[in-house]
Amino acid sequence: MSANGKLNVAILGASGYTGAELLRLLVGHPGIHVAALTADRRAGEPIGAVFPHLATLDLPDLVAIEAVEWEEIEAVFCCLPHGTTQETIAGLPEHIKIVDLSADFRLKDPALYEQVYGGVHRAVELQKSAVYGLTEIRRDEIRRARLVANPGCYTTAAELPLVPLLEADLIDRGDIVIDAKSGVSGAGRAAKESSLHTEVSEGIHAYGIASHRHTPEIEQELSAAAGEPIVVSFTPHLMPMNRGILATTYVRLKAGAGAEDLRAAMARRYEGEPFVKLVSQGHAPSTHHVRGSNLCLIGVFADRLPGRAIVISALDNLVKGASGQALQNMNVMAGFDETAGLGAAPMFP
Amino acid sequence: MSANGKLNVAILGASGYTGAELLRLLVGHPGIHVAALTADRRAGEPIGAVFPHLATLDLPDLVAIEAVEWEEIEAVFCCLPHGTTQETIAGLPEHIKIVDLSADFRLKDPALYEQVYGGVHRAVELQKSAVYGLTEIRRDEIRRARLVANPGCYTTAAELPLVPLLEADLIDRGDIVIDAKSGVSGAGRAAKESSLHTEVSEGIHAYGIASHRHTPEIEQELSAAAGEPIVVSFTPHLMPMNRGILATTYVRLKAGAGAEDLRAAMARRYEGEPFVKLVSQGHAPSTHHVRGSNLCLIGVFADRLPGRAIVISALDNLVKGASGQALQNMNVMAGFDETAGLGAAPMFP
Amino acid sequence: MSANGKLNVAILGASGYTGAELLRLLVGHPGIHVAALTADRRAGEPIGAVFPHLATLDLPDLVAIEAVEWEEIEAVFCCLPHGTTQETIAGLPEHIKIVDLSADFRLKDPALYEQVYGGVHRAVELQKSAVYGLTEIRRDEIRRARLVANPGCYTTAAELPLVPLLEADLIDRGDIVIDAKSGVSGAGRAAKESSLHTEVSEGIHAYGIASHRHTPEIEQELSAAAGEPIVVSFTPHLMPMNRGILATTYVRLKAGAGAEDLRAAMARRYEGEPFVKLVSQGHAPSTHHVRGSNLCLIGVFADRLPGRAIVISALDNLVKGASGQALQNMNVMAGFDETAGLGAAPMFP
Amino acid sequence: MSANGKLNVAILGASGYTGAELLRLLVGHPGIHVAALTADRRAGEPIGAVFPHLATLDLPDLVAIEAVEWEEIEAVFCCLPHGTTQETIAGLPEHIKIVDLSADFRLKDPALYEQVYGGVHRAVELQKSAVYGLTEIRRDEIRRARLVANPGCYTTAAELPLVPLLEADLIDRGDIVIDAKSGVSGAGRAAKESSLHTEVSEGIHAYGIASHRHTPEIEQELSAAAGEPIVVSFTPHLMPMNRGILATTYVRLKAGAGAEDLRAAMARRYEGEPFVKLVSQGHAPSTHHVRGSNLCLIGVFADRLPGRAIVISALDNLVKGASGQALQNMNVMAGFDETAGLGAAPMFP
Repeated sequence: MSANGKLNVAILGASGYTGAELLRLLVGHPGIHVAALTADRRAGEPIGAVFPHLATLDLPDLVAIEAVEWEEIEAVFCCLPHGTTQETIAGLPEHIKIVDLSADFRLKDPALYEQVYGGVHRAVELQKSAVYGLTEIRRDEIRRARLVANPGCYTTAAELPLVPLLEADLIDRGDIVIDAKSGVSGAGRAAKESSLHTEVSEGIHAYGIASHRHTPEIEQELSAAAGEPIVVSFTPHLMPMNRGILATTYVRLKAGAGAEDLRAAMARRYEGEPFVKLVSQGHAPSTHHVRGSNLCLIGVFADRLPGRAIVISALDNLVKGASGQALQNMNVMAGFDETAGLGAAPMFP
Repeated sequence: MSANGKLNVAILGASGYTGAELLRLLVGHPGIHVAALTADRRAGEPIGAVFPHLATLDLPDLVAIEAVEWEEIEAVFCCLPHGTTQETIAGLPEHIKIVDLSADFRLKDPALYEQVYGGVHRAVELQKSAVYGLTEIRRDEIRRARLVANPGCYTTAAELPLVPLLEADLIDRGDIVIDAKSGVSGAGRAAKESSLHTEVSEGIHAYGIASHRHTPEIEQELSAAAGEPIVVSFTPHLMPMNRGILATTYVRLKAGAGAEDLRAAMARRYEGEPFVKLVSQGHAPSTHHVRGSNLCLIGVFADRLPGRAIVISALDNLVKGASGQALQNMNVMAGFDETAGLGAAPMFP
Repeated sequence: MSANGKLNVAILGASGYTGAELLRLLVGHPGIHVAALTADRRAGEPIGAVFPHLATLDLPDLVAIEAVEWEEIEAVFCCLPHGTTQETIAGLPEHIKIVDLSADFRLKDPALYEQVYGGVHRAVELQKSAVYGLTEIRRDEIRRARLVANPGCYTTAAELPLVPLLEADLIDRGDIVIDAKSGVSGAGRAAKESSLHTEVSEGIHAYGIASHRHTPEIEQELSAAAGEPIVVSFTPHLMPMNRGILATTYVRLKAGAGAEDLRAAMARRYEGEPFVKLVSQGHAPSTHHVRGSNLCLIGVFADRLPGRAIVISALDNLVKGASGQALQNMNVMAGFDETAGLGAAPMFP
Repeated sequence: MSANGKLNVAILGASGYTGAELLRLLVGHPGIHVAALTADRRAGEPIGAVFPHLATLDLPDLVAIEAVEWEEIEAVFCCLPHGTTQETIAGLPEHIKIVDLSADFRLKDPALYEQVYGGVHRAVELQKSAVYGLTEIRRDEIRRARLVANPGCYTTAAELPLVPLLEADLIDRGDIVIDAKSGVSGAGRAAKESSLHTEVSEGIHAYGIASHRHTPEIEQELSAAAGEPIVVSFTPHLMPMNRGILATTYVRLKAGAGAEDLRAAMARRYEGEPFVKLVSQGHAPSTHHVRGSNLCLIGVFADRLPGRAIVISALDNLVKGASGQALQNMNVMAGFDETAGLGAAPMFP
């Protein structure tokens, strides 16, 4: 604990959007002290030079990762890019709890990791102990974990509505079609032509069709919920907006089941959950209504095609899809109130 | 013919977006003269008072519909609201050719019309003679028609990719899932809270789930292509952009068929078509690449789920989805080059 | 005080954006209890029916204003439209403290009010006692006030940088040119054609040129700071964004003064202020960096034209320009920490 | 002339936005044949690989600049980056007419060029013969020119309203304040963090304050119009939109002059001009109303400050601010109708 009785945390890779979003959330956290911020290429600069919107906060300057005094750090949020994270995390002292926002520890099967990410995993032993951090689904494991692999944004949006339906055996496991729409902040702050305002605004297109890297992650967790291997159709679309994911999922019902059964299963599964909420019947969740919050809103609808249903989920990809869920997981791991730092209402308009 | 040898046309309801878009396209048409513009509530005003971007054009002032001198008019684009159009069109002199952009004459079954639009159809005889104006599919009928019912924007985006697949019997007719995303201009210029910038920008949501009015229209035309009644799953989403529709359609393949067969059937069907184009294999159509043009771009992809495929279509809802297709139909009806007034390249960014 | 020791407040006109924004901020306020919400046309509905993003909060249902039990209410935020507010506020019991977000009590001169707003003021006595609520400038008066007239959004953006310069007599009082750019939420939630996404996005235009209603308000307060009547040039522009005002103000320097003197005067005036901040020299304030927060960022620059300077201010029109400043004022009036409920960092991106 | 009697042109640097925009406009040009397109890093690719929206056009593939057969080329649009253009253009055969869209030949004074662009000019002799291509102001010189330096986008927006006022000696030459707002396409297609959707949308900020590179260019041309050296205050702002520049210019009137005199001078100067138009009195020009067109709309307003006026100009930075004016200049140089290829109406919404 820090001198003031708070948990001392470091954010590794604080110059990206997920790092900035963590800082925004931590401002309101009663029990966490930000003790170190790293950003190798910006070391020596104040955070306000990288993110002027945070300039008025009282935060440590950015340092190189080698400059962190690890004995003072009790927990780490790792916001480093995919692929570079494994060795960094493997090198952290044992006393440090870690929530990793990269994809490096999400896939349990090293062979699958290698196939999807194109390189041998360099911390296989550590990966075995990592817990997949979809908080509402694996809360007990997360509580005991040292290393939590924070889920991808698309994965969270896809799994929260589907896990209860698979657990309750209400839908056909071979006929799940997920059409997802994401804001562009999911692509990060890297200067890429495809993320330019001119290339994104006033248009939409699909990408990574039948091949997006989040698909194996979705399948891994849905398979766990179903108790058997599941393959899904997953198509992401890039939207002309900064934040938000909407997943419209098309499912075939098991014989005898109706949309109202799906709704009931969802309501039971998430009863009392602070962040996962069913919207009123007949209403459609909107990403407008979750922006800036850790909420995931879900709606269930009978389809016009007999024997089918439509399930829609909405979340903010930078919050419940990334930094918010990371903080939620850290709260669970460190014994804080799970909602600490996450109580802000969505911002609309 | 007008004094200058051009076809004299009137646009009824010229104060909405489809009327304005027609005027934008007609500026470049070599054979059409805009002889009258009506807008009951704005009668007496110049078009520039309603649409300042058209102020520099040489166009007649807006008049009430009663003030039109019909003997001088040879053809009409009717851009009036749904429900008010039937009687107006029924009252037009016989010599006038009509492209109607409303939904009033799209559904062939009066009982279905009544169910979907909530009122008895008031021009049933005329409806029988109306031709559904999906140009690439019904070109010969359109050539002989006096009254063309111009398709809805969603309908056009859904049908162009699906008709060839049904005609070639390549997909399961009971398992068609259409996930459509539309820009907000599809909602027209009416002052509605749900169309405000504050309510639309930076977010997305589905609406009309399992109940959107374009669904029966889609089903009518797909049934015609299939030769048997078809029901589809159709879910529209409101996007934070002005123009464009992207339809991502999920289909199950008939035994033995593959995505390459779908692609080949599509290529055959639209060979030589000036406005319907397959994009290069592996590329995804984007609404960015059709904005302002009459193009519909289509892509075909094998799905990750075995035995399934994904078909994506992109168009500009105000052009190929409304005014552009209306002009294309008029070109066919009046014997002009089908591309007259429609040759402009898309505008990007 | 309410049963739980909190201040019982009512929000009148809670179905507009400023009402919703107050509720978002009050979620994090330790000392205020929302006891009543009024919205005449939506009476009987839960707030979630009007603002789905607030549906998960524990808030009272909307009621008609006549249904409020005033004896339980200790303070009121009045978010009613301009012109309708005077009589409502005049009818409130004496024990109730009021922050009025409308323009009704901002102008001290009834004749000017009548000229600008086109009607006789109907609560002239009350107006005399109202305090203009630019917190940083009139904090002591606000502390003692029963009724605070919360400043307009443009006014706040214009006055915060200019008041210190006039007080320090550093600029020419007859040569102040304010070019302001505002997001569209400033126009409220009313369904107007001019606020549609199609009419706002992807473009910009000026409006109310030389005649905007906030101009007399700006002049009133700048005149108070200068000690003599001041007239300004003020031109607002409507921006394709939801939140944020940027005011770029062009001033002529008094002989001997330089941009660094302006900067120093500003720094002195706002030293220790939690919400008004000078950005680092050479940096330009951006509305991106204040979104969702109560901050006003200010930058000062020497102009290329000799003897002139440029002062730029940025704020969120719904927070420091409306509901945030209203809460700041209520905090001052009620003896809370001035930053209570206002500590959230800006949201970017 | 090409085999088909058209002018054979090459576009150098066709992989940027100005190159793409030229191609969009040239589709509708009756007398120009696009004979070559260069893009060094994309040589060998079809234009549709770089700009999918142009994939359906019949255009030559991209080649390296060395691969162009110059004897077949009669005219060139040069869209290369600032600084790299001088030597390329200096090396072109004498028979080729050139419109250069870079800044390389705009400043007549080599010392000023060096100061502003940070390098010695490497084609000083050629620069002497270059004509500054603000078409409406220098049409006769352009007609006789071999090399036209196409004006910057901000420059065009600033000069068109100011030149007539200086020529008619109606405004104070030492008190011109230009507040300009630009869409992000002005920054080009380069992958820069500052041009990302996440960094641009939903916010506004000023940049290049008192130091933007277009300022000396504005001053050079205004000085020519005034007959004496002029310095201006010029502040550009980055807007969350793709296209459009709005310049709000604040001027002090000469004694005896009123806003109506400014309006009359403007009307006289641009009488009969196809692309520069005064909007109706009391209306404000909007970038919405010029998008995609070569129009520049201008409005004149009396200021609230006595003795001052406000002049507002709106244009599309990629058309009248770049590629459209370039084509207009080429039309003049080659003897085409000046409006050829430029007749399309603006696209709204």
